[in-house]
Amino acid sequence: MGLVVTGAQLDGRDLALRCDGGLIDSIGPEVVPQPGDEVIDAEGMLLAPPFVNGHTHSAMTLFRGFGDDLPLMEWLQGKIWPAEAKLEPGDVYWGTRLAAIEMLRSGTTSFVDMYFHGDQAARAVVDSGLRTLLSVVFLDVLDTAKGDELRAGALEAVERLGEFGPLVRPSFGPHAVYTVSRKSLAWIAETAAERELPVQIHLSETEKEVADCIEANGSRPAAYLDELGLLTERTVLAHGIWLDDAELSLVAERGSTVVTNPAANMKLAVGGVFPYPRARRAGISIGLGTDGPSSNNNLDMLEEVKAFALIQKHDAGDTSVLPAADALAIARGQRSELLGGGELAEGANADFLLLNPELPELSAGDLDADLVYAATGSVVDTAVVAGRVLMRGREVEGSEEVLAEVRERAARLTS
Amino acid sequence: MGLVVTGAQLDGRDLALRCDGGLIDSIGPEVVPQPGDEVIDAEGMLLAPPFVNGHTHSAMTLFRGFGDDLPLMEWLQGKIWPAEAKLEPGDVYWGTRLAAIEMLRSGTTSFVDMYFHGDQAARAVVDSGLRTLLSVVFLDVLDTAKGDELRAGALEAVERLGEFGPLVRPSFGPHAVYTVSRKSLAWIAETAAERELPVQIHLSETEKEVADCIEANGSRPAAYLDELGLLTERTVLAHGIWLDDAELSLVAERGSTVVTNPAANMKLAVGGVFPYPRARRAGISIGLGTDGPSSNNNLDMLEEVKAFALIQKHDAGDTSVLPAADALAIARGQRSELLGGGELAEGANADFLLLNPELPELSAGDLDADLVYAATGSVVDTAVVAGRVLMRGREVEGSEEVLAEVRERAARLTS
Repeated sequence: MGLVVTGAQLDGRDLALRCDGGLIDSIGPEVVPQPGDEVIDAEGMLLAPPFVNGHTHSAMTLFRGFGDDLPLMEWLQGKIWPAEAKLEPGDVYWGTRLAAIEMLRSGTTSFVDMYFHGDQAARAVVDSGLRTLLSVVFLDVLDTAKGDELRAGALEAVERLGEFGPLVRPSFGPHAVYTVSRKSLAWIAETAAERELPVQIHLSETEKEVADCIEANGSRPAAYLDELGLLTERTVLAHGIWLDDAELSLVAERGSTVVTNPAANMKLAVGGVFPYPRARRAGISIGLGTDGPSSNNNLDMLEEVKAFALIQKHDAGDTSVLPAADALAIARGQRSELLGGGELAEGANADFLLLNPELPELSAGDLDADLVYAATGSVVDTAVVAGRVLMRGREVEGSEEVLAEVRERAARLTS
Repeated sequence: MGLVVTGAQLDGRDLALRCDGGLIDSIGPEVVPQPGDEVIDAEGMLLAPPFVNGHTHSAMTLFRGFGDDLPLMEWLQGKIWPAEAKLEPGDVYWGTRLAAIEMLRSGTTSFVDMYFHGDQAARAVVDSGLRTLLSVVFLDVLDTAKGDELRAGALEAVERLGEFGPLVRPSFGPHAVYTVSRKSLAWIAETAAERELPVQIHLSETEKEVADCIEANGSRPAAYLDELGLLTERTVLAHGIWLDDAELSLVAERGSTVVTNPAANMKLAVGGVFPYPRARRAGISIGLGTDGPSSNNNLDMLEEVKAFALIQKHDAGDTSVLPAADALAIARGQRSELLGGGELAEGANADFLLLNPELPELSAGDLDADLVYAATGSVVDTAVVAGRVLMRGREVEGSEEVLAEVRERAARLTS
């Protein structure tokens, strides 16, 4: 039983498509439905590739709006860490469920996630139907003995993530070079290589991290990761603000993906801006992420792509930096093989959106510009992942129940 | 016949209100409907003051997405000015109608506007039901003879704006110090003072404007305006990025309002950031605006208030700059008497919103933080201006017709 969409528009052409087995099995001016197919009449709607949120901590919907506007360390030490100490596994399940609803409502169908209780997040992802590159955060606070203790459990946790079916792609999630010991990082590099697993890590988010890394390890963060074998085409580096030209060349050569998180970087006042023009010249794979909803405070890639384009133009003093089409391709994960955002084509994953063109923000002729600069999530009517309709008419099943659960749990955690 | 709203929530309290004659005539835990009153059951909804868009060119919805990512002068000279040369009065009517729909859908009920064909904009505002401080742009391109010719017509145009009823407040709209001659600016200052009319003008948007003003007039822009009598409590200064401390003190002393437009400033890569921390210390009246929808590219104050908070934190390198409650008060026009954004109280204008709390972005306990950092326009369910319900369930009457008209006209103008 497949899914057929008829009457949609793509780049000004009428388009239909048929999905089966999670893939697009035909796409063109017309397709022939098979008996038993579900048919969506998308007359007048715009067909579009969905967004890939390249870096987030999705269950942190639980801590949205908790301790905003505080200095970074005061926020972490006084608010977030004490609240996280109270986390129960079920909290992560419900927090991730809410994140999934919010992502669908703003056109995101795939995300790269790092948080605690990965099996709960995986269960939430399966129940939500989205696609994820999921990790369980690894932190030994630079304590090698603690690292030794944690490793077996970490491997087991990653292996368990492999049991949640094709939409959950397991990965390692070492937190950062300033929170994970050299020995643990080396073990993760080796284990991930053996099993061909992706690795996601925060890198070069603050200037202090760079200075501390040089002092502790004699190298800048990206060079240090490379010494440990952690810079590969299976690596996602979140932030990458303070990468210098030598590091950018190294990252490009190794094929790692850098994911920029402009809204969170501005909100947390880290000071710098991801050096997009230099990263582009170096030929790096680039993605876009919202970071966690407690430091953004949402998971809206339509808002993020505008923040990305605007801060890059502002920082460069040049309106022509990062034109809409490039910003959009990056937000769709199309500038990184690891993020896997593709074009809509036969044989590709059946992940797509139907946009409602009858809204004021889509009044102009240039859809790329409208999506980057004018549109909000309201334009996303329908979201499909692996051929399953997860949102239609902006309604996601179970939203009320999930919201009520998260409110109750958030109140307990933040009280 | 009045309007009664029951069952809403404000700051955690149950609240009802009754509107009559355009004002709130009672507000409290319960109100007594009069015979013939329209009653809205707002059970569970959040009552909130609406946004005031402090600076825009609303009919430029016609040029949304036209020539994005081009250098500023190439965009103006190659795209916008040739298209504006084709403007017909009816275009401004329909462009403003679309802007009004878009504003309501993102919670704005009042706006400060500068554009051509002011009577058409006024007619659109009356048909839309919003509140506006409206001007007809005045440009003599520094040509005193041309200025002499234009003045009678300009006065007549402003006087005509006075005939559109209580929701349209007429004002003068001299474009900027680099496009209006000294003689015309002095005449506007004098005429506006005689008639107690507000004046809106672009000021200190680029560094070049400041340098040119010093060269041409021997003073920085704000000091120059003051010499001409144009800095009064009836003056809105749009942008104000390059105001130095002496100018900030002067603006504060004169009681003028500075309206910042962060998204457009970043998108047009003007380089600087409105000096909010210094402006606040100087005690200036401050507003927030989207600028025109061809340089933003929308009119969404919920998006703008986030851009405002984020760029200020980024620029200051300090998370605690511009906390959510302050950003929100500014976006609501509550930090400027001229912008007139008030609290919801007996005797105040019956302008308010009802927000839908059953959305993921409002999951946390802190409504101010959620509105600034997480919410999009989707949360606005109902918009009321002067006691008239202009949007309910996110539906604005006439939307389809207006959108179709604007698309047709935009295609003609930009072809």
